Amino acid sequence: MAPAGRPGAKKGILERLESGEVVIGDGSFLITLEKRGYVKAGLWTPEAVIEHPDAVRQLHMEFLRAGSNVMQTFTFSASEDNMESKWEDVNAAACDLAREVAGKGDALVAGGICQTSIYKYQKDEARIKKLFRQQLEVFAWKNVDFLIAEHVEEAVWAVEVLKESDRPVAVTMCIGPEGDMHDITPGECAVRLVKAGASIVGVNCRFGPDTSLKTMELMKEGLEWAGLKAHLMVQPLGFHAPDCGKEGFVDLPEYPFGLESRVATRWDIQKYAREAYNLGVRYIGGCCGFEPYHIRAIAEELAPERGFLPPASEKHGSWGSGLDMHTKPWIRARARREYWENLLPASGRPFCPSLSKPDF
Amino acid sequence: MAPAGRPGAKKGILERLESGEVVIGDGSFLITLEKRGYVKAGLWTPEAVIEHPDAVRQLHMEFLRAGSNVMQTFTFSASEDNMESKWEDVNAAACDLAREVAGKGDALVAGGICQTSIYKYQKDEARIKKLFRQQLEVFAWKNVDFLIAEHVEEAVWAVEVLKESDRPVAVTMCIGPEGDMHDITPGECAVRLVKAGASIVGVNCRFGPDTSLKTMELMKEGLEWAGLKAHLMVQPLGFHAPDCGKEGFVDLPEYPFGLESRVATRWDIQKYAREAYNLGVRYIGGCCGFEPYHIRAIAEELAPERGFLPPASEKHGSWGSGLDMHTKPWIRARARREYWENLLPASGRPFCPSLSKPDF
Amino acid sequence: MAPAGRPGAKKGILERLESGEVVIGDGSFLITLEKRGYVKAGLWTPEAVIEHPDAVRQLHMEFLRAGSNVMQTFTFSASEDNMESKWEDVNAAACDLAREVAGKGDALVAGGICQTSIYKYQKDEARIKKLFRQQLEVFAWKNVDFLIAEHVEEAVWAVEVLKESDRPVAVTMCIGPEGDMHDITPGECAVRLVKAGASIVGVNCRFGPDTSLKTMELMKEGLEWAGLKAHLMVQPLGFHAPDCGKEGFVDLPEYPFGLESRVATRWDIQKYAREAYNLGVRYIGGCCGFEPYHIRAIAEELAPERGFLPPASEKHGSWGSGLDMHTKPWIRARARREYWENLLPASGRPFCPSLSKPDF
Amino acid sequence: MAPAGRPGAKKGILERLESGEVVIGDGSFLITLEKRGYVKAGLWTPEAVIEHPDAVRQLHMEFLRAGSNVMQTFTFSASEDNMESKWEDVNAAACDLAREVAGKGDALVAGGICQTSIYKYQKDEARIKKLFRQQLEVFAWKNVDFLIAEHVEEAVWAVEVLKESDRPVAVTMCIGPEGDMHDITPGECAVRLVKAGASIVGVNCRFGPDTSLKTMELMKEGLEWAGLKAHLMVQPLGFHAPDCGKEGFVDLPEYPFGLESRVATRWDIQKYAREAYNLGVRYIGGCCGFEPYHIRAIAEELAPERGFLPPASEKHGSWGSGLDMHTKPWIRARARREYWENLLPASGRPFCPSLSKPDF
Repeated sequence: MAPAGRPGAKKGILERLESGEVVIGDGSFLITLEKRGYVKAGLWTPEAVIEHPDAVRQLHMEFLRAGSNVMQTFTFSASEDNMESKWEDVNAAACDLAREVAGKGDALVAGGICQTSIYKYQKDEARIKKLFRQQLEVFAWKNVDFLIAEHVEEAVWAVEVLKESDRPVAVTMCIGPEGDMHDITPGECAVRLVKAGASIVGVNCRFGPDTSLKTMELMKEGLEWAGLKAHLMVQPLGFHAPDCGKEGFVDLPEYPFGLESRVATRWDIQKYAREAYNLGVRYIGGCCGFEPYHIRAIAEELAPERGFLPPASEKHGSWGSGLDMHTKPWIRARARREYWENLLPASGRPFCPSLSKPDF
Repeated sequence: MAPAGRPGAKKGILERLESGEVVIGDGSFLITLEKRGYVKAGLWTPEAVIEHPDAVRQLHMEFLRAGSNVMQTFTFSASEDNMESKWEDVNAAACDLAREVAGKGDALVAGGICQTSIYKYQKDEARIKKLFRQQLEVFAWKNVDFLIAEHVEEAVWAVEVLKESDRPVAVTMCIGPEGDMHDITPGECAVRLVKAGASIVGVNCRFGPDTSLKTMELMKEGLEWAGLKAHLMVQPLGFHAPDCGKEGFVDLPEYPFGLESRVATRWDIQKYAREAYNLGVRYIGGCCGFEPYHIRAIAEELAPERGFLPPASEKHGSWGSGLDMHTKPWIRARARREYWENLLPASGRPFCPSLSKPDF
Repeated sequence: MAPAGRPGAKKGILERLESGEVVIGDGSFLITLEKRGYVKAGLWTPEAVIEHPDAVRQLHMEFLRAGSNVMQTFTFSASEDNMESKWEDVNAAACDLAREVAGKGDALVAGGICQTSIYKYQKDEARIKKLFRQQLEVFAWKNVDFLIAEHVEEAVWAVEVLKESDRPVAVTMCIGPEGDMHDITPGECAVRLVKAGASIVGVNCRFGPDTSLKTMELMKEGLEWAGLKAHLMVQPLGFHAPDCGKEGFVDLPEYPFGLESRVATRWDIQKYAREAYNLGVRYIGGCCGFEPYHIRAIAEELAPERGFLPPASEKHGSWGSGLDMHTKPWIRARARREYWENLLPASGRPFCPSLSKPDF
Repeated sequence: MAPAGRPGAKKGILERLESGEVVIGDGSFLITLEKRGYVKAGLWTPEAVIEHPDAVRQLHMEFLRAGSNVMQTFTFSASEDNMESKWEDVNAAACDLAREVAGKGDALVAGGICQTSIYKYQKDEARIKKLFRQQLEVFAWKNVDFLIAEHVEEAVWAVEVLKESDRPVAVTMCIGPEGDMHDITPGECAVRLVKAGASIVGVNCRFGPDTSLKTMELMKEGLEWAGLKAHLMVQPLGFHAPDCGKEGFVDLPEYPFGLESRVATRWDIQKYAREAYNLGVRYIGGCCGFEPYHIRAIAEELAPERGFLPPASEKHGSWGSGLDMHTKPWIRARARREYWENLLPASGRPFCPSLSKPDF
């Protein structure tokens, strides 16, 4: 199968999902740009879209090449209550960058709605909805293709605001199989969001691929039980975190500056993509820790179903086949699927444990 | 200490080292650009400088921001015998990119001389020297500031050619403490290279930070014992590989597609930088697996000695201090040196071992 | 506190438990005698009571010295359907050995009723009750103090038979928190057994200390919810097996000849004893893998409550205090509670994982 | 091959070794009897031979059944300077117990000479030799078959005294491949001892099986290089301790109360026995941590060469064959050599590291 872009005109997100297409999301911005030097851990704000647009554009380009069909605006934490003054400029610039790169391939632009910092202290529906509406105004002006509300505990309010726009609304929650802080189960959560008007529901961030798929299974069951239909979406961490607690990886002692040894391999991600697909999820991407090659791994795993490889596969031999000319025979012997599927990678850290106890 | 570039006009590499300055090298190109989608594992050739110059420029920029004082041309494997036709164009373009970015900060351009693929089969001094001379011609035309021969087993010949140019010559060998395939010890190796005319000697690639420093210690002892002087340089892997054999990480079963859990943390790199400095090494950088934030970690660790922080430290609170405003108190408690220095990061992979047996 | 036996005449098991006393069970016979050379793995039959009575007597003696208040007859698998001819002789000899050693200290003799091998194939109540009754006859003739039915899936029938004798009946099941093969929960299981006439209920074998305590918690809740009262008893593995599945440690790939690295330390057992006590369990012992020093650890942990130490504590300094005269200061520094409570013991096996996937 | 004792009259130790026979040593007394409740850690004295002779006799019996050809007197630390008054009674009783059990099978009695506690403070040759001579007097009176000096830094003096008796002298040192505290290499050490009159030399205790075999290789090379001949003997720990330093396992943080997860499996010991044999060592046994089943594993591994199995093999199916009747098919599948040879046993402790840093 030759690497090739998807031909033809762009279809909308719902049109794609309704026709059974697999939509590949994008990956990590905050954590990846932190490592590249453009985001400050702790603040996690996206002012790089203005200060260092080349760096943000480059990362969008890498995800596009890797096969992403969605360029999510890099607008995390960019709302009036999280950033001081320039949040509107940041959001507008983020939309422009996403649109510019999306235009170079088969990708849509998704406006990323972020949580409000005030909800934690004050359940003031009017004030919070106003914050969402402010964000929506910029996205509408910049004409994004659809909206994703993520990390939003106050999600029902968000959906109610977002559907005022005529764009499709996706919501991904940061919950694990055990449910959220208020003991709302994944199934209940999905039901409430679909009833509020979300077209696409799922999870993102906080939990690793395996755990996130368990949550998706529960969301799917909840919707079926309630007789509701919605498209399913999953964008987990690119980290293995089976030992994190109910609130996810932030409570692990390694967060955020010692997560290296938890990073998934491309083979882990191929397995994840296959399992997500088998579960019926059709919008499959990643969140923190998902590097461009992880996204490419999704695209390569699902290439048989989709019929094409992403552009970046010109630089990747499937299942390690690029090693088949190595001068050392034992390295040539690694150029095969069984090798990488069965590898149990060592950490090189014999003085470290394999699991941690979360701090909370 | 405010983030700031180093003021004043550019001094040459030897001038810097002779005045006792710390020179910070750059990091990983092949492995990093493979993950970003621009290099093919197995081939490991740098045609991206022509095909995707933005991606290469961006990586140079990230290292510059992180504190690198050297932009090494991305010319690995780019010689007549490794790449088909366009190797000269690749080398010229690589020089232009390195020079362009170096001009934005306090960095020199180093021409990277690569090993020949034929040496393995044929110890033909004339033919091999011709290949080195061809590479040198491009670097001389593009007026690089100095030359680095790396991964070059046939290093003495390389030095003999390179000193024909009037540029300083650095050589970094891929050997571990136990010496090379021909049982040449690190000490002997350093002595031969300095006698052949190298001004700077050391190691790069193949071995992790700890192992590389052990080799440096032996090189230093060898030179002292022989009464020779040279500047010392170290650019190890950004991976923990205490279990690799004599030939380094390529023999580990995880190479090259399962190395994730071996990636060093920034704190591991700060420790490495301090130890390299204490050993008397003044040219300190990285090789495969060294991401921009690892280079920044060197610059931050040695900021007290150097008197300034790199530009990218505007986005990094020293020792995790950026976490001190987190809403969760147990995460705020991570905003301190003792925490990160003592962390034993878990792999999140309880079914994997901590060490592997090398395949050879 | 001076090591000392418990003074005074022997009270019955229920008398002890009803007065709030802690009763310490004994430990591992099959697995321990396998390592000593007297039991064959796979068969797991107790013919050693006849063939090598000194070896069995010695193990009873060690548990008595360690603080056990119960000498359970070594009659595992000794019934007509498991052993060919001599099962009655074995059971009689086992009773004599247990009684002989019990007479040397403050211990009762418990007749150990074992599961029938036929239940798996044939749910023939009459036939199975006959097998139990045959065993009971020997125990009645040998006048054991009470009866323990363990590993008995057909436990209700066992209780119905055993209460025909006027001896107290204890039943310990091999179930984990998730319940048994027929999805009977620990709570239900406890309720049924108490209703059938068991005075003491709990779990033994198959699961590690932590997991077994979780099951006990569920049994306790089940009984409370049903308004029933019974004494609680726990005798877990001396192995760490958090990764075993629903059927317990036999499905782990290490069973039975590679379990060494899972053996609990004495400190793990002190923690377990304290938690069992806090949960309200008053009959606390062990099963496979529980060596005499593990039993001593229970007795030492609960010495403050019980008011005395077991005889074997004459050879054990509490919390490592016996090290306080060591010539090396760093070993003397280990003679304290904090040291051992916080130790994370390494396996010395860097090529092995920390968890396994059960085979089923 | 039917389990059977070695037929015929007893040959002396040198007669056996000179005819090429494999002599199997015994295993752990101090650490094993500590776990059984009869030895106090820290003191490590053998008064149990008087206080609890049944416990000591039983352990001798287990080693005899497992295949040991040597009953070493349990006289560790029993000399005038280590124990207060009764050391002579202890040594005499230890000899009687060893002789009694040796008489039940094909085993010799070896008198175990222990180090003096005063050597550390005072290199007083006359006084130290007197202590050795006192011990020797008891052994001569009790007519032991040969003598083993172990843990004796002052070994040359010991050999000089012991050869005053007309019994063969074996010496095992506690040194690793890197040599002892005074930087005496294993090769030098072996040469000195043989020159002083030892017939059998080797190592015991302090280091794991793999490390001990490395030391043996160096001893063998040293003797060959010096043109000397001696029989080789190895009695390592039954623990994996690749991470211990130059002074061995006592410096590991787990010593002595947290070593459980380091215990070797029977399969590890079969591998060790084979490697020792291949190296030319013919006196093969164990030290601390070597349980009876470990000794049996030596006897089973070398049964093809020796022509018989030990008595305890009546209770052990070679390579797990006893599992072949298990009701679960996946457990039956473990009844084969490949399974156990390739098993990588998990520790069940995901929060623990796989290696430790020694305290010194």
